[in-house]
Amino acid sequence: MLLKEQYDTLVSLVQKRDDDALSALLSTLHPSDIADFIETLEEEEKLYLFNLLDARVASDVIAELNTAAKGEILGSIESNQLAAIVDEMDSDDAADIFDELTPTQRAAVLEGIDEEDREEVEALLQYEDETAGGLMSLEFLYVYEFQTVREVINLLRARRDQISDIHYIYVVDKKFHLKGMLRLTELLLAKRSQRVSEVMDPVPATITPDLDQEEVAKIFKKYDVPSLPVVDSEGKLLGRITFDDVMDVVDEEATEDFMRLANVEVGERVYGDPLSSAKSRLPWLIINLATAILASWVVGLFEDTIGQFAFLAVFMPIVAGMGGNAGTQTLTVVVRGIALGDLDYGGAKKVLVKEIVVGLLNGLVNGILMGIIAYVWKGLPIVGVAIFLAMVINLFVAAFFGTVVPLVLRALKVDPALASGVIVTTATDCLGFLSFLGISKFLLEKML
Amino acid sequence: MLLKEQYDTLVSLVQKRDDDALSALLSTLHPSDIADFIETLEEEEKLYLFNLLDARVASDVIAELNTAAKGEILGSIESNQLAAIVDEMDSDDAADIFDELTPTQRAAVLEGIDEEDREEVEALLQYEDETAGGLMSLEFLYVYEFQTVREVINLLRARRDQISDIHYIYVVDKKFHLKGMLRLTELLLAKRSQRVSEVMDPVPATITPDLDQEEVAKIFKKYDVPSLPVVDSEGKLLGRITFDDVMDVVDEEATEDFMRLANVEVGERVYGDPLSSAKSRLPWLIINLATAILASWVVGLFEDTIGQFAFLAVFMPIVAGMGGNAGTQTLTVVVRGIALGDLDYGGAKKVLVKEIVVGLLNGLVNGILMGIIAYVWKGLPIVGVAIFLAMVINLFVAAFFGTVVPLVLRALKVDPALASGVIVTTATDCLGFLSFLGISKFLLEKML
Repeated sequence: MLLKEQYDTLVSLVQKRDDDALSALLSTLHPSDIADFIETLEEEEKLYLFNLLDARVASDVIAELNTAAKGEILGSIESNQLAAIVDEMDSDDAADIFDELTPTQRAAVLEGIDEEDREEVEALLQYEDETAGGLMSLEFLYVYEFQTVREVINLLRARRDQISDIHYIYVVDKKFHLKGMLRLTELLLAKRSQRVSEVMDPVPATITPDLDQEEVAKIFKKYDVPSLPVVDSEGKLLGRITFDDVMDVVDEEATEDFMRLANVEVGERVYGDPLSSAKSRLPWLIINLATAILASWVVGLFEDTIGQFAFLAVFMPIVAGMGGNAGTQTLTVVVRGIALGDLDYGGAKKVLVKEIVVGLLNGLVNGILMGIIAYVWKGLPIVGVAIFLAMVINLFVAAFFGTVVPLVLRALKVDPALASGVIVTTATDCLGFLSFLGISKFLLEKML
Repeated sequence: MLLKEQYDTLVSLVQKRDDDALSALLSTLHPSDIADFIETLEEEEKLYLFNLLDARVASDVIAELNTAAKGEILGSIESNQLAAIVDEMDSDDAADIFDELTPTQRAAVLEGIDEEDREEVEALLQYEDETAGGLMSLEFLYVYEFQTVREVINLLRARRDQISDIHYIYVVDKKFHLKGMLRLTELLLAKRSQRVSEVMDPVPATITPDLDQEEVAKIFKKYDVPSLPVVDSEGKLLGRITFDDVMDVVDEEATEDFMRLANVEVGERVYGDPLSSAKSRLPWLIINLATAILASWVVGLFEDTIGQFAFLAVFMPIVAGMGGNAGTQTLTVVVRGIALGDLDYGGAKKVLVKEIVVGLLNGLVNGILMGIIAYVWKGLPIVGVAIFLAMVINLFVAAFFGTVVPLVLRALKVDPALASGVIVTTATDCLGFLSFLGISKFLLEKML
């Protein structure tokens, strides 16, 4: 981690543009720390500092930068320098960077890198972004099952600088079918003359390249391993996925659910172009407008009653607000339960019963409370009774729709986080107004 | 992963209660797969199967079970059997299990386990649950800097069965101060006669036991390492944290933010007792009721106008709903940005400007759209103008409060996810009604 003194020295050296002292200091720092520091700089300083890094370090730094800083640097860097940096990257990081380049930059970089690297990057670019193939890297060590421990150690010696984070060495047969894996501890304790096949362990799980990244994360969480091999349908070894990329997936997937529940584009981040943010949020606002008009239409059915008893309008926000809030509570618990794998159809009935009980209980408590307040406020017992009944009904509606809507969406293969919110609040708004205004109208017409 | 045939065989063997065949099959399976299978069984079958496992496997299985299944098994297991299982566990898993035991069970288990294990568990139980200390395990390998590689390998041979997942071997001086770490690859390539101090690497970061687990996760994501050492304030080595526990933290923290944004208790899960769910959600509903009453009060200021022009009540849900929706969009982007570390005070102004521009743009589009609809629907241009202006104002309010509220809460050291939603919707409800009804009243009184 960057110490306060180091940070201050860095700042003053950047201001003085002291290349030599900066290069010397940077060479002692971890790439992640350099990335953190770069993020704090102005655009022009970012480029200045980044240009001081040698290609190897620059390749590690750029993989750790946040989206904004990465964009600024990739936007201004020279193509030949970029090619030198990409040349040093692990294949999965290189493929990720490619996604952010302009077509001209891509062509220039593919031109400028090693043929082997080019083939690797092109192979990885074939896979969809959010699949195991998109997470996979081609930098891994493999040995044949008939080799000896001595040969494995020699291979390790030859390739140690090319591959970071060697967790396991994969074992294949002549046709490149995955046979097992070597743990470094076993290797350390084995005799040099032993065969790989005698020392290897079975792999706990394999992954196919088309698997959704959310499923990849579930497998990693289940087996608690630092890396897992990716194999094709015939069992041939294609690459490996490491836990650090999976950790990013866990964050990404949670962010995705967050954004979708709130009707925001998944890709939107806190900084960004206002125009494109506005454009991406607009469709959801318009859908919301349509559902709000539906709720208005329900209110419109009672326009005459409201004209006669204007105080009913005063209580409308309470009925709608409470239904929306209770619906969001249920919805969040259910959507998160689905995402974490705790809830499937087997448990649906149990959860529905639970949520309905919760809704009725809280409907009773809030209904009694608000009924009394309304009675005291307006002096009319009828209003108290109407709001009590409407509250119980609407919290029941919230519980029912909050549970059923995400489960139905999931059965239809739609992300439950995506559209649940709009549907549930439409239900609580419309049915809430209908029950409150309908009951009020009925009672007021009967009694007065 | 469990194959379909294996699953079917397991089911039929459990039904036949065929102990021997089951034990034989279970001994070939990964503990995570056994845990998955147990979760699908009825309570009585769960216990039957669990009792067939030997203590070593049972300790791994129980650590992988979901909360519901773990609770059922811990609720019925005999104390001496439980002690045997805890005896086999890693210290951090043992401490986690302790949190879920009754006081009687705790006492019985502490009585029944090794003295060394007892001391370890008691040491770990001192740390708060959501800190580095709560994540730390005491199973790690350490060597002294003056030892030789040969000695390290002998130690590894002696202790390999006690410690799973050896990523690094930590190096300490005589006073147990952390000096560095040994990578297994370096150890493989070193000469047996070399000193540890010649072969070791610096540790990328150290963690203190009181650090919040969310910060621990950020450090892991930054350095991409499978484990990090925990040291006390003097730099003495206390334990290690491994990436698999951190991955669970990432999920937990995202769930926490989800739940808080929706005003649900952090601990609530999709299954659970309805009474306690209802109780934990009630305070938030009552706060929401109070804020809804505030919005009602604003509407009440215009009761006379509504009595005269009842159609105004029809448009109220639109103004409130759109403001709430736009506010949630902004809020989610900002809260998630804070959680992911993308947004701090430096970026606050930039984000505020962006969000206001987004709010005004979408306010204009939706305002024009809804203004025309209102005009066509009610035939009164004044209503169209009022709703247009109210929409622009309310989406501005949503953008402003959606950005500022979470940042202010964070400055006050309150979790921004915790209370932002209520405050922002109160603002959009109250100011939305105020602007729509106020503008309408003004225009209607002037013009008609």
